[in-house]
Amino acid sequence: MITKSDVKYIQSLAHKKFREEEGVFVIEGVKMVGELIDEFPETIVHLYATRHWADEKNHQELVGFHVSIIDEITLEKISQLKTPNQVVAVVKMPKQPTQENASNRFTLLLDQIQDPGNLGTIIRTCDWFGIQNIVCSLDTVDAYNPKTVQSAKGSLLRINIQYGELSAYLSSKKGMPVYAAALDGTSIHNMDVEGPAIIVIGNEAKGISKEILAFATQKITIPKFGKAESLNAGIATAIILSNIIK
Amino acid sequence: MITKSDVKYIQSLAHKKFREEEGVFVIEGVKMVGELIDEFPETIVHLYATRHWADEKNHQELVGFHVSIIDEITLEKISQLKTPNQVVAVVKMPKQPTQENASNRFTLLLDQIQDPGNLGTIIRTCDWFGIQNIVCSLDTVDAYNPKTVQSAKGSLLRINIQYGELSAYLSSKKGMPVYAAALDGTSIHNMDVEGPAIIVIGNEAKGISKEILAFATQKITIPKFGKAESLNAGIATAIILSNIIK
Repeated sequence: MITKSDVKYIQSLAHKKFREEEGVFVIEGVKMVGELIDEFPETIVHLYATRHWADEKNHQELVGFHVSIIDEITLEKISQLKTPNQVVAVVKMPKQPTQENASNRFTLLLDQIQDPGNLGTIIRTCDWFGIQNIVCSLDTVDAYNPKTVQSAKGSLLRINIQYGELSAYLSSKKGMPVYAAALDGTSIHNMDVEGPAIIVIGNEAKGISKEILAFATQKITIPKFGKAESLNAGIATAIILSNIIK
Repeated sequence: MITKSDVKYIQSLAHKKFREEEGVFVIEGVKMVGELIDEFPETIVHLYATRHWADEKNHQELVGFHVSIIDEITLEKISQLKTPNQVVAVVKMPKQPTQENASNRFTLLLDQIQDPGNLGTIIRTCDWFGIQNIVCSLDTVDAYNPKTVQSAKGSLLRINIQYGELSAYLSSKKGMPVYAAALDGTSIHNMDVEGPAIIVIGNEAKGISKEILAFATQKITIPKFGKAESLNAGIATAIILSNIIK
């Protein structure tokens, strides 16, 4: 049986403070939890699922997991989705990697990304382009925010995401080329980036902070042919990555 | 004075049915309404603003507009934003253009885009790349949805957006190259698109429908280097446009 205090506990995980205290976060929905079971079963602490979901699974598949069967009303209560989708998993956060995947040529630095959906999209896009290391400034939105989890799809656990002082990180990487997205840089079509290199993307409204921009070895720009004032931060990241990794 | 029925009227515009009946929609916030006043003053039916907003404006700027001053509580009631931002404009929808901007080389077709934020991002991205014509399938989300308006930023009124049967549209454009985004096409890095041409983007989960895919003269693909199953539809559109328009 799921108790009232279980419900409260899962609801509390909508808040960063509780996620960090507990070292867990929530992944929801048939597709994403299905991928989780296949790819990262060791991260699953507990599954809360409708009878329907459990019946559709092969029993063999669920051996070793803690599963609580819940009704639709309870599902509504513990879900962060507008349309709850059968199953909610409480999942262990990856430990902060002590070192990045060093064989990966590019590292993406995010300076104060505010929108959780943007961050999720950026994580998913990195996973498409094979970028395995993301370093977020301490004031970037939390990667385990429910909206980030949803928009990252299955990619969240495949990418090393660290939070830290970007200036300290950049100081520790002296000699490595640093490409910074800006409105007044070299066109992405007129450059040839080999890697290893660092790519920096800034805040949705303000761009990259002055302090971090000072580390740039080259500013890069997506040429504009129309009238929009700016591009969404996720879109800008994707266009830059697609031009570098081909 | 703003009446209860005014409040109800503005609230009703969150729904497509009422927007279409009235031929108006809502644009909110200091920045977007400011751009609207500068660029498309003729579209503004009525402004609802806090005293603070009106005081900050030069009176000359507001001559000729219907402005109602409202308090914060009323603003909360009529706003669709989580954080209401001083001013709400009721705006005339553009008439369906009888013909597209024919000098524009590329037309984007959207087949059943479901997420309003994705659609808004796509509109904004088109405005960056100078694509002025978008044709949406009848089952694509409404472009005047509050979430689409917000994510399109100021670009919504700059782009010709039509809704219609894509198959009828494509049949009327025989002889024009049709590039369709798919997972099994030619790499976007191995093609040279001159234009005029049509670019088709499909639904977030299902891609382009079979019927529409049959019109494609070439399927195009964004090469994958990592593990993500797919890209967000807005991201895929942006990467394709950035490769075609450079």
